[in-house]
Amino acid sequence: MDAKLIVDEVRLTPILISDPPLLNTQGVHQPHTPRLVVEVVTRGGVSGLGETYGDGVYLDVARPLAEALPGRSVTDVNGLFALAAETAETVGAEDTGVDASGLRGVRTADKLRLSVVSAFETACLDALGRTLGLPVHALLGGKVRDEVEYSAYLFYKWAGTDDWGAALDPAGIVAQARRFDREYGFRSFKLKGGVFEPEREIAAIRALADAFPGRPLRLDPNGAWSVETSLAVARELKDVLEYLEDPASGTAAMAEIAARTDVPLATNMCVTTFEEVPEAFAAGAVRIVLCDHHYWGGLHRTRELAALCRTYGVGLSMHSNTHLGISLAAMTQVAATLPGLHHACDTHYPWQTEDVVTPRPVFRAGRLTVSDAPGLGVDLDREALATLHERWLADDGTFRDRDDAAAMRRTHPNWTPTRW
Amino acid sequence: MDAKLIVDEVRLTPILISDPPLLNTQGVHQPHTPRLVVEVVTRGGVSGLGETYGDGVYLDVARPLAEALPGRSVTDVNGLFALAAETAETVGAEDTGVDASGLRGVRTADKLRLSVVSAFETACLDALGRTLGLPVHALLGGKVRDEVEYSAYLFYKWAGTDDWGAALDPAGIVAQARRFDREYGFRSFKLKGGVFEPEREIAAIRALADAFPGRPLRLDPNGAWSVETSLAVARELKDVLEYLEDPASGTAAMAEIAARTDVPLATNMCVTTFEEVPEAFAAGAVRIVLCDHHYWGGLHRTRELAALCRTYGVGLSMHSNTHLGISLAAMTQVAATLPGLHHACDTHYPWQTEDVVTPRPVFRAGRLTVSDAPGLGVDLDREALATLHERWLADDGTFRDRDDAAAMRRTHPNWTPTRW
Repeated sequence: MDAKLIVDEVRLTPILISDPPLLNTQGVHQPHTPRLVVEVVTRGGVSGLGETYGDGVYLDVARPLAEALPGRSVTDVNGLFALAAETAETVGAEDTGVDASGLRGVRTADKLRLSVVSAFETACLDALGRTLGLPVHALLGGKVRDEVEYSAYLFYKWAGTDDWGAALDPAGIVAQARRFDREYGFRSFKLKGGVFEPEREIAAIRALADAFPGRPLRLDPNGAWSVETSLAVARELKDVLEYLEDPASGTAAMAEIAARTDVPLATNMCVTTFEEVPEAFAAGAVRIVLCDHHYWGGLHRTRELAALCRTYGVGLSMHSNTHLGISLAAMTQVAATLPGLHHACDTHYPWQTEDVVTPRPVFRAGRLTVSDAPGLGVDLDREALATLHERWLADDGTFRDRDDAAAMRRTHPNWTPTRW
Repeated sequence: MDAKLIVDEVRLTPILISDPPLLNTQGVHQPHTPRLVVEVVTRGGVSGLGETYGDGVYLDVARPLAEALPGRSVTDVNGLFALAAETAETVGAEDTGVDASGLRGVRTADKLRLSVVSAFETACLDALGRTLGLPVHALLGGKVRDEVEYSAYLFYKWAGTDDWGAALDPAGIVAQARRFDREYGFRSFKLKGGVFEPEREIAAIRALADAFPGRPLRLDPNGAWSVETSLAVARELKDVLEYLEDPASGTAAMAEIAARTDVPLATNMCVTTFEEVPEAFAAGAVRIVLCDHHYWGGLHRTRELAALCRTYGVGLSMHSNTHLGISLAAMTQVAATLPGLHHACDTHYPWQTEDVVTPRPVFRAGRLTVSDAPGLGVDLDREALATLHERWLADDGTFRDRDDAAAMRRTHPNWTPTRW
């Protein structure tokens, strides 16, 4: 194998990034949230970038994997899974709790490993593409579209240090949507629900439908509702919803809802691993799977999930958690290669005031142009990375693990999640 | 996109290759059988190779696709499917009968297109790999093994111009197996059945089990048996079979057999397209799918099929039809990237006395070493290609379409397929 493709060094940089006080059923986003930037440097002197969750358990898995990678080729991304399984064993990360915010379905050591592997895979593909002069999409068989459409991600939120102000009622949500429409041109709107009683969230969706007639609308309470509540909301909003996302928790509840409503159900909670697919598809629990290259295990695995969905006649869209421009570039590159991506992808990106890439991506008409530049098409802003890493170093442990419930209890000490 | 990766020219060379008189439930292999060699030549002067079925209907689909390809990048393999669908419309190839030999399941225009696309995809990946200095497996995420295991493909056969002689009884089959064992080192043996009454084929498998104790044995009557016959054979051979391949025809029959025997069932007939997967998997009709990059649509699609099988806990092996060294190289490259390939792959290759690649691949201990050379790792023997093309040109139409039944009727005019 070409020596210039051999990994020489892997740099892991945990960072804390500013995040506005966005509300969800598990609490509120912390003012600073952890991410991990992975740099894979080849003997050819090329650096490839990856990004994933930055909580302590992810770092525990990433560190031994980073130590094991030098000497291997950046072309060898299929081999990362076995390598991660071997190295993760040494850190005793089996089946510890992982997802403190509880918004991404099951928590297993396997999913944790995949979430780490995904950043290494992305970094390897970026380095490979940069070395060869090819965009990452060309390493995945080539793009089938020149632009990827994203949706506006609307949140109930408190006023914070950001310039968006509070949004706690239908008027606030509509105002937020108007700004997303004006500044980014998003056509689809998704509201993060499960925050207030369902009637208030129904009213917000109704207000959006009045303000933006005919636009695709989605509501996602992260599994906070009962089957009956979910069905009641579906009845109320069936004429305006593109889909209802994870109204209730678990495949059984989703299947029961699906059997009793025509509103399509989407998920990034009951189908988050390949192991969960057969039961959910057999039960007809979901009509749309929201793929996420982070926890499905990377860009190749995302394409495999897309093939599964295509085979079973299940639709595809894309999930997002708080992320920076490296992940956005990876999402855009893989989305460009997926036939049958008929729903705009989710992204938190417009909520992030900080980034480690330069120049920052620009949405036009709600879309990103698919980069044909080598690799992911983004460059690392080392100064920004250093600043955000310093923040991580200076943190006393308060924000190094994301915990939306703990963040909420700093303001409301007796808060517990509500289910409707 | 890099100009040197742009397709400059596509060369299609239909050929006729010698084939021994191998028997199957549809008749006998013709003395000459058609294949199509696809060469994709880039502006950088690099030529990539692909190989597929060479019957007239395949040529009808390949020709307009070959005309449409120049100006596109060899990286754009995901786009080949839409391109083939567009160009095939112009040749009126919709839902014509395709597979004259009836050994590969459903016959649809879609599957015909995929069988052609696969050769173009392979040729593009070969050209891309040669240009970049990377093996095809590295373009598919990298190999997870250094060798790919193949099985001996045993056939009842007549004596022909080949040096194998006739094999029409258990002793003949065992003698054939001994030569495969001695010359190629194959560990697994597959017998093409459905030729004689089941008792005679049971006796052949028993004789193999006695001659090669503990070796994996397979029997494949290409769907020629009833459910009851299949179950009777399964009962007789349950202690020695690795799997029973397509004992009966169709998903319903396979599912009924599967429900009533512990012998694993494999298929390359009832699951040959992504559309057929959900029903067959839901019915538990098969425990092993025999993938074939030709009719599944190429190497990327083969990886997607493997992901589907992995997700549903279905095993994977590889089907083979009469093919040359280009296809063997493609099979080996993609097989090298598939985790969970726990069964030796089928190949007809040892039966072929002619080839268009040089040097010819060599099996050791039943295995091929996965080439790390650029592209597929095989070079075109232009002299051999020209000779085999001349044979195609000189043919009066007798052998340009494969028809095993017609070949059989040249010897036995009143022959019809038998079902047991």
